[in-house]
Formats: sequence, structure tokens, C-alpha cells
Amino acid sequence: MHITIIGAAGMIGRKLAERIARTGKIGERPVNRLTLVDVVEPEAATDFAGERTALSADLSEPGTAERLIAERPDVIVHLAAVVSGEAEADFDKGYRVNLDGTRALFDAIRTDESYAPRVVYASSLAVFGAPFPPRIGDDFHLTPLTSYGTQKAMGELLLDDYTRRGFFDGVGIRFPTICIRPGKPNKAASSFFSGILREPLNGQEAVLPVDDDVRHWFASARAAVGFIEHAATMDTNRLGTRRNMTMPGVSATVADQIEALRDVAGDHAVNLIRREPDPAVARIVAGWPRDFDTTRAHDMGFRAETSFRQIIEVYLEDEMDGRRPDIANHKT
Amino acid sequence: MHITIIGAAGMIGRKLAERIARTGKIGERPVNRLTLVDVVEPEAATDFAGERTALSADLSEPGTAERLIAERPDVIVHLAAVVSGEAEADFDKGYRVNLDGTRALFDAIRTDESYAPRVVYASSLAVFGAPFPPRIGDDFHLTPLTSYGTQKAMGELLLDDYTRRGFFDGVGIRFPTICIRPGKPNKAASSFFSGILREPLNGQEAVLPVDDDVRHWFASARAAVGFIEHAATMDTNRLGTRRNMTMPGVSATVADQIEALRDVAGDHAVNLIRREPDPAVARIVAGWPRDFDTTRAHDMGFRAETSFRQIIEVYLEDEMDGRRPDIANHKT
Repeated sequence: MHITIIGAAGMIGRKLAERIARTGKIGERPVNRLTLVDVVEPEAATDFAGERTALSADLSEPGTAERLIAERPDVIVHLAAVVSGEAEADFDKGYRVNLDGTRALFDAIRTDESYAPRVVYASSLAVFGAPFPPRIGDDFHLTPLTSYGTQKAMGELLLDDYTRRGFFDGVGIRFPTICIRPGKPNKAASSFFSGILREPLNGQEAVLPVDDDVRHWFASARAAVGFIEHAATMDTNRLGTRRNMTMPGVSATVADQIEALRDVAGDHAVNLIRREPDPAVARIVAGWPRDFDTTRAHDMGFRAETSFRQIIEVYLEDEMDGRRPDIANHKT
Repeated sequence: MHITIIGAAGMIGRKLAERIARTGKIGERPVNRLTLVDVVEPEAATDFAGERTALSADLSEPGTAERLIAERPDVIVHLAAVVSGEAEADFDKGYRVNLDGTRALFDAIRTDESYAPRVVYASSLAVFGAPFPPRIGDDFHLTPLTSYGTQKAMGELLLDDYTRRGFFDGVGIRFPTICIRPGKPNKAASSFFSGILREPLNGQEAVLPVDDDVRHWFASARAAVGFIEHAATMDTNRLGTRRNMTMPGVSATVADQIEALRDVAGDHAVNLIRREPDPAVARIVAGWPRDFDTTRAHDMGFRAETSFRQIIEVYLEDEMDGRRPDIANHKT
């Protein structure tokens, strides 16, 4: 089958492409063609055994979507987006890329009447806005508090409608916050959730800007790739008309994160976390969801880690070659 | 103040314009200018004492929104829409008018940085889709099952985001099914809800295509105009970021409707209802919501009728000059 990944230069897109290149499959299904698209030409999966195409293209520019659809991929994974902070700072760009780009893709598919591919749409917890119940159920309303969340929610609605009309077979997945993100800290308010684990695991100091009782919803990057693989290959009949789901994850406090780090890497690692309260970050994070009831996604076969310790183990396996920090040497 | 009503040739828009012309006010606030807009030039409120402008204009055509906004109305009531059946039959037109037209309006307002009017947005129960809980709460998710409902839900999301960003001060109101609609039967699947009352009150036969236990959510046209007046003038501070609300109404079965008709107009009127089951209509109506918890709208001061009898009384007052059917003569 032919898979097109739009947004393939991002962390999840790259990992998905690499996994497909490594296994030659998505889920159980053989992949013989892989098209990787992003605003910068994707570099992943150069070792893919099948036909690989990498393109620099912007979905929000006229003609791009039509060009991608002309190749009639069997599965389109749509991960391309302007992230939350940028969509808030640049109103026009956020709507152009996140809403108009998505709509351009969906309409290009619709226009080809004999073509109805599987479309996997990356949505976000940002579709939800406070105040929240303690656990957010599958029928909780979408009241985003950012332009990014608004755009993602509008994309969810389009996904449902275009699927209902038979234009394609859509599955929308709301990713948990990915933890531990590999790489460097970034400017996202959520950066510290990964930083307070990743930096100590690599022997470096990390700053914790919020209280230990802050609770949030997490899954590993490996689980995120697994969600996409499952969404790309699952039997969608049971989904009915509600095509968007919150993905499973682990509800954990910062304290839970720190204790899992202590279990895996000892007190020395934990001591590398420096508490430096940042009221601005605390205020942003206070508006984020803490826990979800993901019965529906679970019933549909989506799986994530079930403890924060597992999330750390996955990071060690996937990003540190399974190497554990040298705990003995560092113990005080 | 200057009020612009977009969609002023429709039943609600016309009634709103006529009420403003009659009272010279919206709510408690004097209105000295009234701009009426629709795709056909609105004919209502020619007796308005202030400055009245009636325009034939299509919001989804380039430049229309900018032209309306250049007059900087204090309140914009946005009722213009392609209705459910047409949006389902003509996919492109539905999205162009209901989504792109709304967005063009909102963006024209946004572009004028020193201008932030009150915007009253007409949404719909069609933003909700089955399966439903017995009563649909204010935090039930939006899972429309029509393109119309999808477009209205996307407009709700835009309204919230544009309000949050300070571009305008939006209030979105989800109207109950208006009953008793004046005028003739139409092709809407909901037409019979009014028809089985309106026609007998006028001494004519009406067809009932569904079972007596079908339950739905209703308010009068007078209540609908009241919702808009309140939305146009209320203190919006208490609304916070959630600007869309289901309006209050009466949850009634067809049997409740018929008993209310019997109370007001006697057996003769009821005997004019001819049962003629239509499985196609029954199937459509089975997917409609039955009852709502509208605590939030009620707390915000929105009011509707509280019994179906009242709904009929309002129709008699507003559409039949308070004239009651001559019950005695008709009683068997």
C-alpha cells in the first residue's frame, strides 16, 4: 500500500516513517510506497526498501493538496500543523495552515469521486478547555481556549462530516502530551514535563517551573506512533459517525514523574531537578486537562503505557539504546 | 444604536425587525438605525421611525462583509444560513454560505481593529447528534450528523475564538424548533410539528407522519425573538469563554402537542389531524434531540414558554390576533 505522511519532518512523523521503513509495514499491512511531505523536505526513512518520495510542500498553498491526492495514496496521515504558541501569535497563519490547509486536503480528496482513502487526522487535547470535570469523558464538549485548539476542533468536525458523506474514511486521534520528547527543550509551556526527566537521565540539570501536584496526561512517542498505525489499519465500522477520540495515556502528577525517575535513575537524577517557579507557566498549565476516560479508544484497540515508569523505560529503549543511567556512580 | 440583521428576510429576522420597528428598542436600548440584509431585499419594518436600510447582499460573496462592517453597527445579528436540507443536498453551497459566509463576516470585523461589536450568532440544535443522553446538558459534545450541523458547530467555535481574542463580543444561541411556525407547510422534516397545530387551528386538515410518543424541543417564534433581544443587550461578562448556549424551551411529545391543542381548540381541531406514518420522516426525527438541561441559559436570563399550551396561546395572540377557534360550533 501507499502511505502519505503530511508533516513528516516533525518528531512523530519522522518516527512513523522510520518505523514503516524498518518493518516494511504499517500495522500488519505491507507498505511498498511512502510519500513524505513537509514544509521542509523530510529526511526520514531514507533506508525504506520500497519507493520513497520526499517533498517540500505547503498544504495551505493552492494546488498542493491536489498534487498529493493525484497519487491516490491508500492512507494519508495528516500531522501538519502550526503549533499552539505560533497559532496564538500569528492568527492568520494558524487559520491558514491548520484550518484551510486541512480543508484543502479534505476537499482535494472529495473532488476525486472514485477515491476514498483512510485519513488519519492528528488532533489535540487542546480541543478541550477548562473548566473540566475530574475525568474528561468521551462525550465532553469541545470548548478550546486557544486558536490552535479551535482549528483542531474544526478539523475534527470536518473529518466527521466528510467521513459521513463517504468522501473518505477518517479517524481523528487526540494525542496525549508526548513524554519523554527526545531532543532539546523548546519554548512550549509543556516543555518541562519532558525536560525534568530527559535532562537528568542525560546527567544534566533541568528546571521545574510548577508545583509537584500539577497533573497532566501523557504517553510516549512510541505509543503515539502506535496510535497512528492502529488508526491507519483498524476496522472503522465500529466507530460509526464519531470519528475523533481521545487516545489512552497515563494521568500523572509531577510528583509521580519524579518518583518514576527516582525508581529508574536514583536520587542523583532527581537532585538535578531545580525548582524555579514560573507563575506564567503555572497559569497556562492550570488550564490544561488532567485525566481522561478513554474507554472508547481502548475498546477500539488503541493502547498506551499504563504507568509513568513504563513511559521512562520506553524512552531509555528508544532514545538511549536501552542504556540506563549509571545509577551506582551517581548515588550520593 | 445601530442594529444590522443579516438574514432579515427569514421568519425570525422579519419578526425581530418588526419588533424593533414597533418598540423603537432592542431590549431596553433605543435603536435609531436598522440595516436589514438578505439575499433577497428584506421587506420588513418599513414603518421603522429611525433610519432604515434594506439591502440585497450575499455574505459569502467577496466584499459584502466588509461593506456591512464599514457602517460599524453596534449589534450584528447573524441569522443568514442555507437550511439543513439544502446544505445536505448542495455540499458546496452549504459550506460556502454557512461556514465561509460566517467567517467572512467575522474576519471583516476582526480586520477593523478599533471595532468590537456585539455579534449574535444563530446556531442550532443540529450541532448535536445521536446517541443522546435523556437530557442533553450544556457540556454535551458536538457531534452533528448533518453538514448543516457541522457548519453551525464550526461557526460556534469561531465565535468563541474571535470573542476570546477580543475581535468582537459574541453570543451564540441554539434555537429550539420554532413552533407554531406561521405560514405554510414546508419540506423540512420538522414541518409537521407546526402543521398538526397550525392547520387545525385554521380549520384545515394536517398530516402526522410519526408516532404520538415522538418527543422534541420547542419554543415559540416570539421566544426566539426574545432570545436574540436578550443576547444583543445582556451583560456578557458572566458568559466567560463559553459563548454558545442551548436556549430554553419545552420538551413535549406529539401527544402533549395534541392534548394542548385539544385544551385550546377542542376535539374538532384534534380530529383534523390525520395519521399517515412516513417511515422516512420517522427515521430522521428519531435522530433528533428530545430534551435539554438549559440551566446555563436560564441563569443568563434567557426565557421561553414553560408549557405547550403557552406555545399555542402565543401563536393565537401573535398570528391570529388573539382569535380563538370557535370551539363551541365545532364540538361534536
